[in-house]
This record gives sequence, C-alpha cells and structure tokens, in this order.
Amino acid sequence: MRFSHSEHVSRLAGGWLLAVCLCLAAHTAIAAADLLPSWADGASKRAIIAFVEQVADPQSPGFVAADERVAVFDNDGTLWSEKPAYFQLLFAIDRVRALAPQHPEWKTTQPFKAVLDNDLDALAESGEHGLLELVMASHAGMTTTEFEQIVQSWLSTARHPRFKRPYTALVYQPMLELLEYLRANGFKTFIVSGGGIEFMRPWVEEVYGIPPEQVIGSSIKVKYELRDGEPVLVRLPEIDFIDDKAGKPVGIHKFIGRRPIAAFGNSDGDLQMLQWATAGAGPRLGMIIHHTDAEREWAYDRKSHVGKLDKALDESADKGWVVVDMQRDWKTIYPAQSE
Amino acid sequence: MRFSHSEHVSRLAGGWLLAVCLCLAAHTAIAAADLLPSWADGASKRAIIAFVEQVADPQSPGFVAADERVAVFDNDGTLWSEKPAYFQLLFAIDRVRALAPQHPEWKTTQPFKAVLDNDLDALAESGEHGLLELVMASHAGMTTTEFEQIVQSWLSTARHPRFKRPYTALVYQPMLELLEYLRANGFKTFIVSGGGIEFMRPWVEEVYGIPPEQVIGSSIKVKYELRDGEPVLVRLPEIDFIDDKAGKPVGIHKFIGRRPIAAFGNSDGDLQMLQWATAGAGPRLGMIIHHTDAEREWAYDRKSHVGKLDKALDESADKGWVVVDMQRDWKTIYPAQSE
Repeated sequence: MRFSHSEHVSRLAGGWLLAVCLCLAAHTAIAAADLLPSWADGASKRAIIAFVEQVADPQSPGFVAADERVAVFDNDGTLWSEKPAYFQLLFAIDRVRALAPQHPEWKTTQPFKAVLDNDLDALAESGEHGLLELVMASHAGMTTTEFEQIVQSWLSTARHPRFKRPYTALVYQPMLELLEYLRANGFKTFIVSGGGIEFMRPWVEEVYGIPPEQVIGSSIKVKYELRDGEPVLVRLPEIDFIDDKAGKPVGIHKFIGRRPIAAFGNSDGDLQMLQWATAGAGPRLGMIIHHTDAEREWAYDRKSHVGKLDKALDESADKGWVVVDMQRDWKTIYPAQSE
Repeated sequence: MRFSHSEHVSRLAGGWLLAVCLCLAAHTAIAAADLLPSWADGASKRAIIAFVEQVADPQSPGFVAADERVAVFDNDGTLWSEKPAYFQLLFAIDRVRALAPQHPEWKTTQPFKAVLDNDLDALAESGEHGLLELVMASHAGMTTTEFEQIVQSWLSTARHPRFKRPYTALVYQPMLELLEYLRANGFKTFIVSGGGIEFMRPWVEEVYGIPPEQVIGSSIKVKYELRDGEPVLVRLPEIDFIDDKAGKPVGIHKFIGRRPIAAFGNSDGDLQMLQWATAGAGPRLGMIIHHTDAEREWAYDRKSHVGKLDKALDESADKGWVVVDMQRDWKTIYPAQSE
C-alpha cells in the first residue's frame, strides 16, 4: 500500500501529535498519582483522575466551574469502617451502659436489658423500634454542647473491638487522599450520611478536613431555650430527618441546593444519591466502595445487614458507576498507626 | 510636677508609640473605610471595623480562627426591602394570578378570591392559614428544577410597585459592601431567613455573593421520584421547617453546626438569632438595621406588621447590639441604577 506525499505527512504529523498528547497525559497522570499513593494503578484510579482532569481543566469540553464542583460522600463503609456494627450504635450501647445506674428500670426493659446483658441477638430482635429507643435514650435530653462533649470524650477513650484502635483511626487512607485530591482541584467535599449529623460534626473536620457546615446526616429535633438568661439548644427525643436512601437526594437538595457532580457510596442506602448525582448533564462520577477484603477489613455485600450492597451493585454497570474492589484497588486500608 | 529622666524618656517613648499606633489604626481604618463607602462615618461603621479588625488580627487578644468566622444575615429587611409586603408574598400573588385560568374555583374561594380581586384587606383577614394556602398553591406541585425556573422568570420581569425596579435591585448597597468586607477578612457569610430557601437560592449567589449551600430558610418538603427513569425532586404542599424566631438558632445549628460570631437582623424574628450568636465567648457583633428613612426607603418598627421591631430593640442596649439608623448611617440605600 502506498501513500501520497500529503497523506504521509499528515500521518507523520498525527503520530507526532499523538505522541505529544500521550506524553502530556502521562505527565499529568503521574502528577495526580502522587496525590493518590494508596490507590493501586488500575481502572478505579484511572477513572478518578480522568474525571477530575476533565472537569478542572478550563480547556476541556467537560470543564465545570469551581462553584459547581460538589462531591458527596457517604460516611459509614465509605469513609470509615462499619463493622461489627455502625460505630454510632456501639457509641449508643456504651452510653446506655454508662447511664444504666441512673435507670434501674433498664435491667428489665428491652432493648436496654439486651444491651446490659450484652445480648446482641435480643437487641437485634427489638428491631427498628428498639434501636430508635436506644438512640433516643443515648442521644437526647442534653444540650447540643453537652452532646458534643459526650461524643468527643467517647471517641478519645473507646477502642474498636477487632483493631484495638480509636474509631477515628479506622478511616480509609485511600479516601483521605481522594478527599484531598478533589479539594486540591477546586471541589467542595460534603458528607451525606445516614448517621447522626451531631455524632459526626465534632471530629470530621480534623479527620477528613470537612467542616461541620458540609456535613449532612440524620438528626433529631432541637429546641431553643433560655436557661437563666443563657440561650441553649436542647436535644429532643424526636426524629427530625432520616438522611438515608431516598432521603439522601432530599438532604442534598435541602443543605446544598445544587446537584453534586460526583457521589461516593458503598451500599443500597446510597443508591438514590448515586442516581441523583450522576443523572445530571456533563461529566459525572459515581463510585461504589465494594468491601472485598476480609483479611484487612471485611468482605460483604448482598447479604449483609449492615451496609447491604445489592441493587446499587446491579445498577452500577448500566449507570457506568465505578466499583472499587477494596482488596485489589487499595494498597493500604487505614492510616499508619501513630499512637 | 517634675519627672525623673527615665520617666521623661518613657513618656516620650510612650508618646511615640501611641502616635505610631494611632497612625497605624488610622491607616487601617482608612483601608477599611474604602471597603464600606456607603456607610457614613459614625458609631455603626466604627463598631463594624473595630470588630472585624479584632477577630481577623492574629496579634489581637480577640483573634478568631478563620474557620470560626461565621456571620449570619437575615434577608427580608436586612439585605433587601420588605415593603409593601415580603417580596415572596408578591411573587405568590403574581403566581396565583398566572395560574387562575386553570383554577376556576379560585374565583369564589378565599384566599384566592382576595388575590384575584386585588383585595389585600380580605387577604389579610384570611390570616396565617390563608397565607399558607397561598404559598402551597404557588410553591408546591412542581419539581425543584421547575420551581427554580419559575422564580428566575418572575424576577426577570416583575417590577416593584413603588420603585419600578426589579426586586433584586432593591438590595441594600451598604450591606453588599459589608458582606464583601467580611469575606475579604476571612468570614463565611450565610443567609438565615424566614423566607423560602428555594425562593432565595436561584439569585443570591449573583446578587450577594452567597452560594446556595450557605442559604438557610423556611422550606416545604420535597420527595424523590423516578419519572421515566429520570430522578426528580417534587415539591409537596407540606411545611418542612419554619426558619423564624426560635427556629433561627435551630436552623443555624442544623445547617452550620457552629455558633456564628456575628449576626445581622432587623426585626423581632431575628431576636433569638441575635441572642444565640452574641451569647458565645470572645468578640461578638450583633447588629439591627432600624428602618428610619421614610423618604429613601420606609420608616417602621414597633407597630409594623411586616418586620416588627420591638423586643429586639428593647434588648439591644442591654446586649450591646449595634442599632443602625438607616437614615443617618447609610449614605445610599440601593445600588446605582444600571438598567
């Protein structure tokens, strides 16, 4: 096969341009790779970098103005572990035990008896209603300032049963890097969690670099009062908002007022948030953390009570959501132990 | 009276230091004055500058870390006018008129009849319940995206009955400067309004420089739905949250999760927000815009239905809140007409 002179020149020029482009792309990818050292080279990491470079580059057709670069993260199972049970439930259990001397009636009343007897089967049997009672007994009745101190104090002393480390040490190192990488590229990062908003706010700024005003979660009602002329906010034993499943896009809309362009979750509780974020126009990134590492963390999905991942996994292929294989994609799970 | 040599030197040195300090202070004040050109020199402007310089200066004993520099602003009557009625009510009235052809029953049903007959007395007689019906008929039943377009479209065509300008032109120039001045000094500025959060979000970023995620307001419930596979949020005719009076500190806590160090309001609806913000430790600024200028804007306080200022005015002296006399303290009210 012969080429005309002009075809030949054009092919040569094309080859040169391609080489330059590949070189530039490789260069940019290396720069980004340094910001994500705990991510193994592979499809997940490449998808993150490709998305971020596309939206942050003013020359790219997928460029998104900095104001609109909103990324939302589930917390339990996405930013920190959630086994053997949600850490907030472990907090509630410890709290009920601490308060038990003031509540002799708890020795004979469920779900408190189950907690005091360390009978997790009986606790599970008390169902959603029992858990709600537990939450109200442990989370309501004090001022917001008092509750914040209770959470801080628990976090500073409680240790995880398997890893014997503080709960705030069981956050995912690759996700900490991802949060930083997004912020370095002009993103505003939000937590959108089914967990209690006031259980998270006291520590997420220090641990994740996410300020309290960028935390969305479930909440109980609070009431404004003057006590001896001093204003306080008192926590009431009444649900205000459940930030889970279809509640997540509602919470996002209520608190942020615009649609995120990236969403990160790990369970069916995040399905609607993923749908909502990725259905908008322009480049979108939906990502699911798949717990596949029984050795370094836990392995669970469709059949797990906590963090059940079933429908969202089915929908991921159709929607183009990236499924992170924790075992394969993460070189490390938790930050190095410093204490 | 005679001085020893050392006393003399020390007094001279002291005098020199004082002169340097005054000069520096004057210099700083001038720099700040340039950022607040619409504020007349006087106690209100001095109080703002003294507060900001104190909290933003790392050398000052009153220094506040940038993260904690949170300032909250009421909207109606504090950032823009609220007469002859809340602009959002005028929007609801226009909306009911626009929808009337599809609702023949409104011709004979209150409060809609009152709106269609332009009978504001009858509308007032329909009371809170009537207003609520009006809001639900005009604000609910569509998706959040549709509602945003309705608001944008109204704002682009509606004109204020007295000033014949778009409503978004009736914002206070001195407050625009104050917002900028605070942000230039590391503050994060939030709106905390009794008005509807989704009535404000479409335009406040452009007009005030406040992004949607920093807007707190009253809201109705929304519901997540898939329509032909496309996710939408539908506005329901049901109150979610009233961000007024004791609801303001509750809203601040819910959305921001930390206590502001500065609060700006104009009515008794802002009393609890002012109490909450100014009761914290360290330097605090509480400020009330007093509507005293019937000629350039409106004059009203204790006896006004809209923007009633009575208890908060009484409490201002005791609490050290600065009362801005609009007539005396503001050189201009609205931004210069550009259209």
